Amino acid sequence: MRVEIVAVGTELLLGQIADTNSAWLGQALAAAGVDSHFHQAVGDNHDRIVLALRTALARADGVIVCGGLGPTQDDITREAIAEVMNVPLRRDETIEERISQLFGARGRHMPPSNGRQADVPLGATIIEPTRGTAPGLMCPVGHKVLYAVPGVPHEMAEMFERGILPDLRRRQVEAGEESVIVSRVLRTWGTSESALAEALQGRVEVLDASRADGAGGRGTHEGQPGGGTVTLAFLASGIEGIKVRLTARAPDAAAAAGLLAAEEAMVREVLVGRFGDIVFGIDDETMETAVAGLLLARRLTLGTAESLTGGLIASRLVDVVGASRWFRGGVVAYTPDVKQDVLGVPAGPVVSEAAAVAMARGAARLLRADVGLGITGVAGPESEEGVAPGTVYVGLALPGDEVETATLTLPGDRPRIRQYSAISALDLLRRRLSALPALPERAPSAPGVA
Amino acid sequence: MRVEIVAVGTELLLGQIADTNSAWLGQALAAAGVDSHFHQAVGDNHDRIVLALRTALARADGVIVCGGLGPTQDDITREAIAEVMNVPLRRDETIEERISQLFGARGRHMPPSNGRQADVPLGATIIEPTRGTAPGLMCPVGHKVLYAVPGVPHEMAEMFERGILPDLRRRQVEAGEESVIVSRVLRTWGTSESALAEALQGRVEVLDASRADGAGGRGTHEGQPGGGTVTLAFLASGIEGIKVRLTARAPDAAAAAGLLAAEEAMVREVLVGRFGDIVFGIDDETMETAVAGLLLARRLTLGTAESLTGGLIASRLVDVVGASRWFRGGVVAYTPDVKQDVLGVPAGPVVSEAAAVAMARGAARLLRADVGLGITGVAGPESEEGVAPGTVYVGLALPGDEVETATLTLPGDRPRIRQYSAISALDLLRRRLSALPALPERAPSAPGVA
Repeated sequence: MRVEIVAVGTELLLGQIADTNSAWLGQALAAAGVDSHFHQAVGDNHDRIVLALRTALARADGVIVCGGLGPTQDDITREAIAEVMNVPLRRDETIEERISQLFGARGRHMPPSNGRQADVPLGATIIEPTRGTAPGLMCPVGHKVLYAVPGVPHEMAEMFERGILPDLRRRQVEAGEESVIVSRVLRTWGTSESALAEALQGRVEVLDASRADGAGGRGTHEGQPGGGTVTLAFLASGIEGIKVRLTARAPDAAAAAGLLAAEEAMVREVLVGRFGDIVFGIDDETMETAVAGLLLARRLTLGTAESLTGGLIASRLVDVVGASRWFRGGVVAYTPDVKQDVLGVPAGPVVSEAAAVAMARGAARLLRADVGLGITGVAGPESEEGVAPGTVYVGLALPGDEVETATLTLPGDRPRIRQYSAISALDLLRRRLSALPALPERAPSAPGVA
Repeated sequence: MRVEIVAVGTELLLGQIADTNSAWLGQALAAAGVDSHFHQAVGDNHDRIVLALRTALARADGVIVCGGLGPTQDDITREAIAEVMNVPLRRDETIEERISQLFGARGRHMPPSNGRQADVPLGATIIEPTRGTAPGLMCPVGHKVLYAVPGVPHEMAEMFERGILPDLRRRQVEAGEESVIVSRVLRTWGTSESALAEALQGRVEVLDASRADGAGGRGTHEGQPGGGTVTLAFLASGIEGIKVRLTARAPDAAAAAGLLAAEEAMVREVLVGRFGDIVFGIDDETMETAVAGLLLARRLTLGTAESLTGGLIASRLVDVVGASRWFRGGVVAYTPDVKQDVLGVPAGPVVSEAAAVAMARGAARLLRADVGLGITGVAGPESEEGVAPGTVYVGLALPGDEVETATLTLPGDRPRIRQYSAISALDLLRRRLSALPALPERAPSAPGVA
């Protein structure tokens, strides 16, 4: 089963927005074991949408067209589909009535243009809208199929899951094509994409050799237990480090899970042997959730003192639900005298390891936290105190009056240096906390902290 | 002149990365007055790249293919282009030698696979690489043209500007198609996209009526002075508000600038009359640069006290170059006792307007700032002190012991409530500062503040 995605909207061609819908649908199709060999984007123009849909139908078994179902004169996907199907549009009175009621419920009359959203190509079935006014469409074209969904991302995603995915599954079963795809992302911080790729090159070659021809191939490899294939991919995600994505495709869920687990163990062994503790999380885990878990397990609280990051670190920590259980607060000390007056940093240079440690100690003291994190450095564009942009000092004040420091040299412009500084400081904290013993579970009778 | 963009990479189809290159190229082509009616994405598969290129050449005058020029076996754009051109690949020894020297300069031998980057389809000319090892390609196909650039964004962008754009300009001149496109974005905060669209509907209709048929049309309207067309578009940019984009296309730069200035004046008049002071900046100006400009002009300094935003506001302010001239620092007071101990908030509820004002005063006092900004509220997912998620209180402590407060009710999940809170608080500060008189320029002999 091959499905092509067609995104409709002149704003996509003009680059006014990036086409995140196609990326989302690409992920969702891959996860469902459906191949997608081409994506297209096309503007709000009748003839060109018709041409894009015909082109897509010629080279795929199904097409998902996304966008152009709204009420305005620019929204012409319905008309284009009707032309491709060679059928007229019919106004569906039930849908029109429901749209009218939605307006009525808000004390408004339905503008006549919204009636267009009730136009359905003859022979198409609708996917009921639950989040907007526009219904989705499922349109047979010979033995192929054309699905239409709104361009509003959360409406599109909900209709895909509820309306399109079950229909695709049914078609896969009919074609004898059931397979399960599962994937897992290992998130790393501290090394380059090329170093990761080099370290794992051996595994990639073994997997490539054992896999059937090319991307999207559906062949299974007899040599692997249970049948199925595994692929490794490296994704540079900018300021959040490098991701290693493991994807297993197998005839059933158990086989896919087994392949994935075995591959993850092999990849982790290679990475630990070569780079140490660089995997900070899997899938959606972030550096701050890793830090949160370590602090909670050790019953420690944290306070921060930030200069060049200016609150980025505190803000990332507060994004974790329940942060008040382990995060006390922070001080943004952007000027030397605030560092001295509020945090008690000694007079003298404030861009140094000693200043970072003094900031960490000051934060722990002022905020009554067990652990203090201090960071100072130069975000640029100009040097400060003779220190070049990208030079950053991190200090940790730990229980038992222990301290740890790091000096970083970071690339990029001001925003990137600030972002890299924040995640690097959190990673230092993560590694240092990992070395401290975790405490046993708190007794259930102990009072919780809000 | 119509140019289609073809992005190559299986990772695009799988949605592992969003296709930002096509968006960038779409913007750059529009700015150059080149129409782009379709974009395609295709995986790393020879036959499918060939099909995508042939499809694109059939419906455009030129094609930019992006990606697949690297050294690995996955990088097969060169071979696909040679097949479309129906010519062999020839190894260019000058390029090969230069790549080899690049490796030598880093003390390494060139891996044999990198030699592939010196393969050039017969009849193609190269665009010299200045930032990587892969050259770009300019390939004639009959009277049409196929450009190939690497997928690394900054290499792609640099080659487009240096190699492709001049060639496109030459082709536009030959086709008698010179025109200039200029655009400006008015950035607003405080109203919805539909309210903006409704307020400006009259202007949109006038402009639509006076413009030649559809997106990408090149017709000029005789009724407009100097010839040329103007379009209005509304772009919801999520947490940064709604943008109104004005785009003028005219035969020369002066005419385009004149059209744009006239349209901006009309749009601003409509917006001020309907919504008041909602335009906070143009083009790349952010809410924090607006605040910075107002504080500098009034010689005021700012200190912040943040609860639910947890440093987001301070971090946005520090992102402005030279922030130390007007930003003193901030306190992230995420727990009630930090609000009380560090900021002097009275005991009692800490999610209230009174607490926000006390935080603002505490920040101004502790950080010795002229203006204090305090923010407290509930980011969710749970209620706090009986206050529902999305309820946010902002307090400003201004010179002369004046205060200003606002209560916000914000939609969305935890991250969005925090982001909306940050920009809403900055917008309140912006509007309040606008009402204070600006001071005359500081005398040149006065000592500067670092």
